[in-house]
Amino acid sequence: KAATSSREYFLGCNSKYLTVPQNVPSLHSSRISGPLEAPSCVDTNCSSVKAMDSMSGTHFRDSNRKVDYVLVYHYRKRFTQHQPGAGSLGPMHRAASMTIASNGETKKSCLKLQRDNGQNAPQEAQVIELDPLDTLEEEKRQQREEYECNLMAAGLEIEKDNKSQGLNFVRIHATWQVLSREAELLKIKMPTKKMYKIKEEGGILKKLSEIWCKLSEPLQPQVPQEDTKMKSLSYPFSREKIYLEWARYGVFYKFQPIDLIRKYFGEKIGLYFAWLGLYTEFLIPSSVVGIIVFLYGCITIESDIPSKEMCDQHNTFTMCPLCDKFCDYWNLSSACSTARASHLFDNPATVFFSIFMALWATMFLEQWKRLQMRLSYFWDLTGLDEEEVKFQVIEQTEHIIQCFCLKASIVIKLTCMYISLQITLTFSAVFGVIVYRITTSAALSFSTNETTRSNVRVTVTATAVIINLVVILILDEIYGAVAKWLTEIEVPKTEKTFEERLILKAFLLKFVNSYAPIFYVAFFKGRFVGRPGHYVYVFEGYRMEECAPGGCLMELCIQLSIIMLGKQLIQNNLFEIGIPKLKKLIRKMKDERTEPKKMDTSQPKDPQQWDLDYTLEPFTGLTPEYMEMIIQFGFVTLFVASFPLAPLFALLNNIIEVRLDAKKFVTELRRPDTVRAKDIGIWYNILSGIGKLSVIINAFVIAVTSDFIPRLMYQYTYSQNGSMHGFINHTLSYFNVSHLKAGTQPENSPFAQNILFCRFKDYREPPWSQNQYEFSKQYWAVLSARLAFVILFQNLVMFLSILVDWMIPDIPKDISEQIKKEKSVLVDFFLKEEHEKLKLVESFITHDKRKHKSGAEDQRIRAASLSQFNQSQKGSIASFSSQHTVV
Amino acid sequence: KAATSSREYFLGCNSKYLTVPQNVPSLHSSRISGPLEAPSCVDTNCSSVKAMDSMSGTHFRDSNRKVDYVLVYHYRKRFTQHQPGAGSLGPMHRAASMTIASNGETKKSCLKLQRDNGQNAPQEAQVIELDPLDTLEEEKRQQREEYECNLMAAGLEIEKDNKSQGLNFVRIHATWQVLSREAELLKIKMPTKKMYKIKEEGGILKKLSEIWCKLSEPLQPQVPQEDTKMKSLSYPFSREKIYLEWARYGVFYKFQPIDLIRKYFGEKIGLYFAWLGLYTEFLIPSSVVGIIVFLYGCITIESDIPSKEMCDQHNTFTMCPLCDKFCDYWNLSSACSTARASHLFDNPATVFFSIFMALWATMFLEQWKRLQMRLSYFWDLTGLDEEEVKFQVIEQTEHIIQCFCLKASIVIKLTCMYISLQITLTFSAVFGVIVYRITTSAALSFSTNETTRSNVRVTVTATAVIINLVVILILDEIYGAVAKWLTEIEVPKTEKTFEERLILKAFLLKFVNSYAPIFYVAFFKGRFVGRPGHYVYVFEGYRMEECAPGGCLMELCIQLSIIMLGKQLIQNNLFEIGIPKLKKLIRKMKDERTEPKKMDTSQPKDPQQWDLDYTLEPFTGLTPEYMEMIIQFGFVTLFVASFPLAPLFALLNNIIEVRLDAKKFVTELRRPDTVRAKDIGIWYNILSGIGKLSVIINAFVIAVTSDFIPRLMYQYTYSQNGSMHGFINHTLSYFNVSHLKAGTQPENSPFAQNILFCRFKDYREPPWSQNQYEFSKQYWAVLSARLAFVILFQNLVMFLSILVDWMIPDIPKDISEQIKKEKSVLVDFFLKEEHEKLKLVESFITHDKRKHKSGAEDQRIRAASLSQFNQSQKGSIASFSSQHTVV
Repeated sequence: KAATSSREYFLGCNSKYLTVPQNVPSLHSSRISGPLEAPSCVDTNCSSVKAMDSMSGTHFRDSNRKVDYVLVYHYRKRFTQHQPGAGSLGPMHRAASMTIASNGETKKSCLKLQRDNGQNAPQEAQVIELDPLDTLEEEKRQQREEYECNLMAAGLEIEKDNKSQGLNFVRIHATWQVLSREAELLKIKMPTKKMYKIKEEGGILKKLSEIWCKLSEPLQPQVPQEDTKMKSLSYPFSREKIYLEWARYGVFYKFQPIDLIRKYFGEKIGLYFAWLGLYTEFLIPSSVVGIIVFLYGCITIESDIPSKEMCDQHNTFTMCPLCDKFCDYWNLSSACSTARASHLFDNPATVFFSIFMALWATMFLEQWKRLQMRLSYFWDLTGLDEEEVKFQVIEQTEHIIQCFCLKASIVIKLTCMYISLQITLTFSAVFGVIVYRITTSAALSFSTNETTRSNVRVTVTATAVIINLVVILILDEIYGAVAKWLTEIEVPKTEKTFEERLILKAFLLKFVNSYAPIFYVAFFKGRFVGRPGHYVYVFEGYRMEECAPGGCLMELCIQLSIIMLGKQLIQNNLFEIGIPKLKKLIRKMKDERTEPKKMDTSQPKDPQQWDLDYTLEPFTGLTPEYMEMIIQFGFVTLFVASFPLAPLFALLNNIIEVRLDAKKFVTELRRPDTVRAKDIGIWYNILSGIGKLSVIINAFVIAVTSDFIPRLMYQYTYSQNGSMHGFINHTLSYFNVSHLKAGTQPENSPFAQNILFCRFKDYREPPWSQNQYEFSKQYWAVLSARLAFVILFQNLVMFLSILVDWMIPDIPKDISEQIKKEKSVLVDFFLKEEHEKLKLVESFITHDKRKHKSGAEDQRIRAASLSQFNQSQKGSIASFSSQHTVV
Repeated sequence: KAATSSREYFLGCNSKYLTVPQNVPSLHSSRISGPLEAPSCVDTNCSSVKAMDSMSGTHFRDSNRKVDYVLVYHYRKRFTQHQPGAGSLGPMHRAASMTIASNGETKKSCLKLQRDNGQNAPQEAQVIELDPLDTLEEEKRQQREEYECNLMAAGLEIEKDNKSQGLNFVRIHATWQVLSREAELLKIKMPTKKMYKIKEEGGILKKLSEIWCKLSEPLQPQVPQEDTKMKSLSYPFSREKIYLEWARYGVFYKFQPIDLIRKYFGEKIGLYFAWLGLYTEFLIPSSVVGIIVFLYGCITIESDIPSKEMCDQHNTFTMCPLCDKFCDYWNLSSACSTARASHLFDNPATVFFSIFMALWATMFLEQWKRLQMRLSYFWDLTGLDEEEVKFQVIEQTEHIIQCFCLKASIVIKLTCMYISLQITLTFSAVFGVIVYRITTSAALSFSTNETTRSNVRVTVTATAVIINLVVILILDEIYGAVAKWLTEIEVPKTEKTFEERLILKAFLLKFVNSYAPIFYVAFFKGRFVGRPGHYVYVFEGYRMEECAPGGCLMELCIQLSIIMLGKQLIQNNLFEIGIPKLKKLIRKMKDERTEPKKMDTSQPKDPQQWDLDYTLEPFTGLTPEYMEMIIQFGFVTLFVASFPLAPLFALLNNIIEVRLDAKKFVTELRRPDTVRAKDIGIWYNILSGIGKLSVIINAFVIAVTSDFIPRLMYQYTYSQNGSMHGFINHTLSYFNVSHLKAGTQPENSPFAQNILFCRFKDYREPPWSQNQYEFSKQYWAVLSARLAFVILFQNLVMFLSILVDWMIPDIPKDISEQIKKEKSVLVDFFLKEEHEKLKLVESFITHDKRKHKSGAEDQRIRAASLSQFNQSQKGSIASFSSQHTVV
């Protein structure tokens, strides 16, 4: 029922998302026709729909063979580009793209061709009038032909347009034989019913348990044979709808869309959406707990004694001036509001929440392992091991490889250098912002305007954070490009290594970029201030900045929320929608500019589906999507102690994000090559690394940044009556104003005469002590407590994580039981089959003997068995293809 | 050459290890004949040796079929016991034991039979004269027959003695058909050459790359077809020899013995020996570094200022008395020797060594992962997933299972209770020893004998450690039994779960048992002493014990070395050799006592091989062997900071251990059922857990137990000139002797009158301070530094470990490349095969057409092809079996 409703919903919304306006009617109708025709199609062996689809261009001209893959090349007099584009329009054939990937020889020549093109293209573009180019052109044509020849030798069928100019499409159909051979090579598992038939001819094809069938059965009637594209498009909408009918989300989610996404896009993208879904699901409980923690802060704010004491006008703590000369002594009660605000985040519940979130991260990773296992079971990937290792498109000749081997060490040095350069850039950016804050706040405090001066802190903080955000956004884009460039000059051998190295570099840079200012606020800000009379100065007379009187945690919270929200809103959503659209616009304009006349002559007829798909953006990989989510995961886990609402904001972002991503993949990008993948690869390692880092960072945030430990220490050690009364007084040290250096005294202080001592926040010996202004015993005791807390927290959480890891088995119980069952069914089947084989051999032998008596009879039997064999083979083909078109 | 020399060595030593004296001549000759005949055997298709072996009982009576498995039952008038014994005597067939395991139905009835026997046996023994027992006996016979029937139905061939009384042996031969079927089911990979032939009939059998063949080629000529038993026996000797020719050990080790062990004992035991080998190999560098660290301590002992200061007779530090009333004030210089000794272990190199060992542990685990991968590749286990999950022998009926489900919660409660009880027992044992020390040292100090009093510490420490050791050894045995009993009442469903639970429980108990006294010395001893004038008293007036003046590290070191060495010497070597021999003796005596007459009548002829093997001990699993090594691994890693020589002692022990284990497996135990295993299972988790624990424990040992941090702090913070001069003075606090409580002053002190202040080791405020005897600022500062060091050390080492983990790929590069190559060879092969198949089908079709013309011709062709098929099948059988007998 969910499926039907979503289908209806889709019908209403479809036109909104078609980005190729000139073609809406035909495409629209063909797409809609799919689901409407679907029920009848299942019964009538799909002939009606097939005929219809051939009109809209998903079949060869004979209307029988489906187009499984399309190659595009640009054929011009001077400039040729052979570019295998995406956009396989027929229903998803699992092996379709791999057919090309796994056939060693064919692949090689394909690669060679492409490399040559890639290398020569720039030359061509520059020296466009030279004669040798024609021969080059000719050579390329030959290479193309050789490539096509190889494709045909591998058993693929090819149909092409014989246009002499402009875009040429080579449409490829993978025959049943090719598919089954490749399936054999890749050991793709097949559903049960086909087992007996396929076994006779295929050999290695395997059997899945009955359970699989039963589980997938409810899916099958709902899925129309054509237009998985449409179904997949419907998914974000139905998903969004289900969010409003909320409780059924989990059930719905697990079954329908992920399966469809995987069928249409392949396992890799399916895994991404599955991961994103699980992550979003996991954000729900953490958001709820985060809100509860926040509410706890709100509720207990009235009963919090330290903030009450701070706000109490009767307690007159005269604080030392915040800047030299121009700042006056001030009363602590003026910082009352920040103190109250910081209690919202700095309360005992936060400690609990950090532990919760560390375990949450572990649990999430464990659950992901399980989900991955489950998916790879249902997607029949359990036997898959190394198929995803493709050799990269740019394959070097022997000579070039040797050159690169020699260059390798240089490249690595270069890479290290660049990365450290970039990181230095980030740090200098952060430092620049710090300098901006110090100088601006100093400058503003010179101001004579009273309102300006009173709002110094707010102004400076707000502007500084915004500058930080802008710097982060700009550097992020630069770093992405730099990481890609660095990886390219490394020339890794396989696509997988390339991806992994790129991810690692980009992650390192982006991580440092995103978190550097936050780390600064959390652990360094206000720690190098010095003390009154002995301040630390930078740049000739600027004092290092201090945290607000409420503690650095408040500032960390502001910093974190603005950067996180800003980054998500601007980068993820604005950029993700805007930039692809912009790119497409530019590309379209360029295309029109370069060949405006040819388009007119060759495009009068209705454009085929492949023409439309060609106008879409090529798929550039999942890396940016994952990266965005991983950085968000960092915000959610790393500093969660200071900002319990982070999961909530992440959740809100992701609900939009899922929809945007799906829309982008379905309507704005060419259909990517389906790639099988068993797991999310290096991202898992990065996630678990962040999880581990989050434990130690949260430990330090609670111990060092927040006031949690000093409060505990005061309550249980120093307090007279075990209450928090007097805590504020305890944390403030005394300073004899006469010890202020000359020239740093407040200039225009009205009550400078009455003040003997001013107070400052630190544990130092009072002026009347022997070792005045040295760190007091309390300082060391509190420091010990802080460090002990870090050790305790870290080891406790690590132990709990290991326990959780160990308690939750990696393979879900039901899955492992099903695998076991499958195995026993398989054993029974083999035993039975063997007996039958034995009987068959015996009967053959008896026949053999009888044959000596009558040759004619034997002939009859042989013919019968042969025809039987042929029939069974045909039957299996038919059932297989029907299964494929139906599912 | 190594093989021949080892063989000769074996010939000399063989008789020494035969534990069944009456049969030495025949067995001896048959065993020796193997290797001597071997070279000719390879050429002449092994007929001569086969004939000879049938005499010595490794074949059926027809001298053709090999005995692959032997079942034994004890048939008596009143008392029957059906006991499937180990002892498969023929050459190792990989699938042999699994044939029984994997055939579901047959297995079940077998299990049923056994369960019934197991349950009824005790009843029988008691009420031995009752009539119903005869019917029971009859029933059992029927069950046995049914079982044998099932075995035959599964295609196995059976030969049995028809004795009416005494031991009956059922010898089983697995035919080629059964083997190949089971191989198919288990997806066992086969070497290349057989590929083509096997493919035609087998189906799923797979191909290994040429490389495998090449690698295993050097092995093949060296290995005689018969008597792998002997070869395997030769391994410990040759191994040991190679230890003396040392450099070639690594190379030799990797190739020969592990492969042979695995062939004879199966993968599981092979993995154990591989693991043990790698561990021993890894102990070499750590021993070397440990020795260097120790030597560094020896060399720098003269330049160590603190110990010099302690020994300096001019510095008169008058220390407070060590016990009340009877002890006098004493001079620190009298503890000079312990101070010097503790420098041997407590020096800066130790810190480096702990980091080294933490990384060593990580590296070891990583290398093990790689070796495991490599072995599973060479042993063709890469495709293996869940075969090792066998259902346990004790299978409950429905009713009993229900009962147990209800009981489950009770059982778990019981288990938890028992484990906590046991742990409490351990702790009370430790506490008992502490009490012993306190009281004894107090008692001894009352003594009037001057020599007794001066040796108090030495006497008490030595006796206490020995008591500890004895307690550990006794409790270890008890705990092993308790763990087993607890796991049995839990009734886990599979053998694997059973093993894992048993291991976990036993490990937990033995771990606590072995390390509790060490933990006490490392982290608790001397920390609850109190201070002069305010000591902590237990048991009416006994003061808590202090560490020696040299620091607790010295005592930890003594404790560790004695427990480790004692445990290894006594438990591992003495017990391992002695107890099995004792058991065998008892068993033999019992056997002889119960049926002394029957033996005489039925054993006049030469005993067969199975008779001899029956007298050996049954195999009880690898758990004790692993446990022993894991506990040793704990000694090596957990407290390595306090005892750098631990790896050396472990290494020495292991060199003996490898030999003992191998000897035990080969000569003293029945040949165990071969079990395939992909990894070492839960032991890996335990190892990595110990690795993680070792980081934090070493951090604490260095920070808290050793004087490393106070020294650093003194040198860089408190020292006047940056040197260590004055450190001893700095660590000693002052105490005003007049503050001693009445009655605790030294009674017979000659110089009590002259003393105003005595010193004690602690950071406390002096008597003249305001807060006298409170912890001083130094105390808190040093504590902070200690804790900071723990955090730094732990996170640094963890980070480095992760880095090492990440840098070393889990799959060795050469293996992954070989797998890739295999794959491409496979692809080529399949392509070729497909083309051939197509041709064949075409030719068949043309034949079909022609057949209408001449039936006779067709008949000829068919017969030819059939005979060809038969031939190829025979050929493959022949080549397979020859390959099996040769390898």
